Amino acid sequence: MRFNIKAISKVLGILLMMNAGFMALCLPVSIYYGEHDLIAIASSAAITALVGFSMKFFTRKLPDKELKKRDGYIVVTSGWIFMSIFGALPFVLSNSIPDFTNAFFETISGYTTTGASILNDIEAVPKGILLWRSLTQWIGGMGIIVLAVAILPFLGIGGMQLFVAEAPGITPDKLQPRIQDTAKRLWFIYVGLTVAEAILLYFGGMTIYDAVNHSLTTMATGGFSTKNASAAHYDSPFIQYVLIVFMFLAGTSFTLTYYALKRNFKKVFKNEEFIVYSIFTIVIALIVTITVFIATDSGLEKSFRDSLFQVVSIITTTGFVSADYTAWAPFLTTLFFILLLVGGSAGSTAGGVKVIRHVVLFKNSFLELKRQLHPSAVIPVRISGKAIEQGVVSNVLAFIMIYILVMILGVILLSTMNVDFDTAFGAVATSLGNVGPGIGNVGPLDNFYNIPAPGKWLLSFLMLLGRLELFTVLMLLSPYFWKKN
Amino acid sequence: MRFNIKAISKVLGILLMMNAGFMALCLPVSIYYGEHDLIAIASSAAITALVGFSMKFFTRKLPDKELKKRDGYIVVTSGWIFMSIFGALPFVLSNSIPDFTNAFFETISGYTTTGASILNDIEAVPKGILLWRSLTQWIGGMGIIVLAVAILPFLGIGGMQLFVAEAPGITPDKLQPRIQDTAKRLWFIYVGLTVAEAILLYFGGMTIYDAVNHSLTTMATGGFSTKNASAAHYDSPFIQYVLIVFMFLAGTSFTLTYYALKRNFKKVFKNEEFIVYSIFTIVIALIVTITVFIATDSGLEKSFRDSLFQVVSIITTTGFVSADYTAWAPFLTTLFFILLLVGGSAGSTAGGVKVIRHVVLFKNSFLELKRQLHPSAVIPVRISGKAIEQGVVSNVLAFIMIYILVMILGVILLSTMNVDFDTAFGAVATSLGNVGPGIGNVGPLDNFYNIPAPGKWLLSFLMLLGRLELFTVLMLLSPYFWKKN
Repeated sequence: MRFNIKAISKVLGILLMMNAGFMALCLPVSIYYGEHDLIAIASSAAITALVGFSMKFFTRKLPDKELKKRDGYIVVTSGWIFMSIFGALPFVLSNSIPDFTNAFFETISGYTTTGASILNDIEAVPKGILLWRSLTQWIGGMGIIVLAVAILPFLGIGGMQLFVAEAPGITPDKLQPRIQDTAKRLWFIYVGLTVAEAILLYFGGMTIYDAVNHSLTTMATGGFSTKNASAAHYDSPFIQYVLIVFMFLAGTSFTLTYYALKRNFKKVFKNEEFIVYSIFTIVIALIVTITVFIATDSGLEKSFRDSLFQVVSIITTTGFVSADYTAWAPFLTTLFFILLLVGGSAGSTAGGVKVIRHVVLFKNSFLELKRQLHPSAVIPVRISGKAIEQGVVSNVLAFIMIYILVMILGVILLSTMNVDFDTAFGAVATSLGNVGPGIGNVGPLDNFYNIPAPGKWLLSFLMLLGRLELFTVLMLLSPYFWKKN
Repeated sequence: MRFNIKAISKVLGILLMMNAGFMALCLPVSIYYGEHDLIAIASSAAITALVGFSMKFFTRKLPDKELKKRDGYIVVTSGWIFMSIFGALPFVLSNSIPDFTNAFFETISGYTTTGASILNDIEAVPKGILLWRSLTQWIGGMGIIVLAVAILPFLGIGGMQLFVAEAPGITPDKLQPRIQDTAKRLWFIYVGLTVAEAILLYFGGMTIYDAVNHSLTTMATGGFSTKNASAAHYDSPFIQYVLIVFMFLAGTSFTLTYYALKRNFKKVFKNEEFIVYSIFTIVIALIVTITVFIATDSGLEKSFRDSLFQVVSIITTTGFVSADYTAWAPFLTTLFFILLLVGGSAGSTAGGVKVIRHVVLFKNSFLELKRQLHPSAVIPVRISGKAIEQGVVSNVLAFIMIYILVMILGVILLSTMNVDFDTAFGAVATSLGNVGPGIGNVGPLDNFYNIPAPGKWLLSFLMLLGRLELFTVLMLLSPYFWKKN
């Protein structure tokens, strides 16, 4: 056997058992509200735990072998797929989403922290099930943190080296024991921020239940809401500002937040990605504010709040909606569409291309002009003052290229399913970028219910592809991976 | 003085005088048809010749200096701009296009071989002026050939090295005397093919006048027609097939055509760009044929002809229209939009990204997966069997990146001028790619008349940027270029 079946099976088994545990957390809520989703959740947890246990148990006698790079690709991709299959059980068994395609779409949209939904009436879904829906995003966010600090650098994925250099206690090439410490520290921040946000939202006037749900999906940059109108349900400025702050934090590298909590502010303010991320967000928010202020009759504060909310929500790939921004002005629709392609910071729970890759792209493009004038000089890209290896730059460029190629291919495929150009573009960009709402018929006030089933599978695949930084999934589809050597 | 004013001024002067000569060619046509455009054309030619002569004459006493790389960037960009300013005179003076913005747009659309038009009634324009309109494209095409074989390699622009390696009698780094021979040979092919096409179109039933006009704009991959309905005016299958063949040839590297005429077919059939260009065109045309055959009630031959015509017209960036392809099926609108981004072969008169760059992009992206599995191995991109230097690959990637960035920026800017998303995307892509028709309100049956004036200037700039392979123009906007050293 060329792959380490035992280790792969064991990791997947543990993941499923953990998921069963999270499902069990929804049981008290289900009992409290008494909405008849108890049996569905309990049996989903039981099935998931049983399968997970079996995967660990029945492979226990296989020989122990080292976990290799190739096994890593398989674990990560199949991990997300397994979780999405079993995570869909509560939706199907409770009849909240009877159709498996829809249930799988909703679940993988959760685990990938995308937040695209097929639910026409979210508020009609039992509270236990809705909590599970929010939890899939929160679990996805936890997974992403460990992926970013530990697994992707090990697999050598797309410019993650740039981020890793900044992480505490990590050397890029090996999975070291200290990485476990790092992951634990970052998870601690993740949990802490989730709790803090829930408390603030509760004080802002949300019920405990809604506060917890919204804080789970904010910190994951997921964007599932328990309300049909998403964040627009709450007209409290306090609640909206709290969401803005925590979305922004969730889109910031957790390593930087760690340093900030350690009062090492120097590390934060000389981090080029953070500076660009902050300034870009503010500048775009101001441009949108001015446009909205002129184009609508909202006051200045409301224009600013709505604009900042929507800009932060999209850049961080959260996808909460506080207003129908596609109705503000045609120019803003185009702008928001393009913001779908930005993505938050590396090492955060945000999806998309990521700010650091754009920084590398822009600097390299600009320097190419200089290189042309001085063809014999070696002119490296510098990030936060340090020269970046050309191999890493090429990798980042290749990442962005493949991102665009996948997007184009996705739009073509979705167009063959009788989806119009705007909707196809919006749906593909928002899925691949793990944002949530798109434009056209999948805009902020609509959902993905009417996309044909093959389209839902395609978009599910794109969410996975985007969330796992493309290469992890594409590697499994490449001939190089399966070739014996 | 840091720049070689004398040489720059001399080249621009010669260009203007040549242009005056071409304007004079329209005089007999004007006299023959007697449509009162004679004085306009004559005075345009006189003004242009006078300015051209002055530029050469009044700088003759400046000291002689070597023409340097930096001067090259200035000559090329300002050359195209000067020609477009003076080339607009016949339109303005004859009152065919009284507004200078519109006239400049039409003219630069000509010289850049784009073919986007603001004319609502082409057939109402006097024949002398229309011939001038076609000639701007043909002159632009001549300029592009010398640019591709001689100037861009000298300036080190975006992957042109890949093409140059294949050109007869050229070494990349110096402007050699033999380059003049090469340019002359390729011009000879250009002229020969133009004559051949005109004869065939005449035998197919066009008037001599229309045959000449269409053949001038075909070989330039420009796409200006003398008919309001473009190629759809002629329902003769013979004429349409002739146009298809010559568009395809115009989108093929003229160097390869040279080898083919020398019966060196081996060089042609092991040229990777040509193989990809041919196969891609055929495959896409077949996909479109099947879709059109199913979606409309045209017969198989008509479906095939219309599809092949439109696919070749867009891939070669010609932009002739034989049918309203945006009405065929929503999927095809998306597909044709994406074809706007392909571009013909390097060393042809076609604009756009060019096939060879896509080949490099795809191969490099694919190899990146292999590099990830084997991080210490050196894995170069190979084209036609030869390994390509990593610097050239980076340059190609940077080119494509900047292309996309410019496109995004263009769409955002055009959106601020109350242009809807589809139209903005279509207009920007078709201008930057030098194609002609776009989608939305600038689709195959519409024109650019209703785009607001600032939008027309923006699109004019994009046409120039695309035509001069981005770097030539962007270099002039970069601080590196103006820095003393």
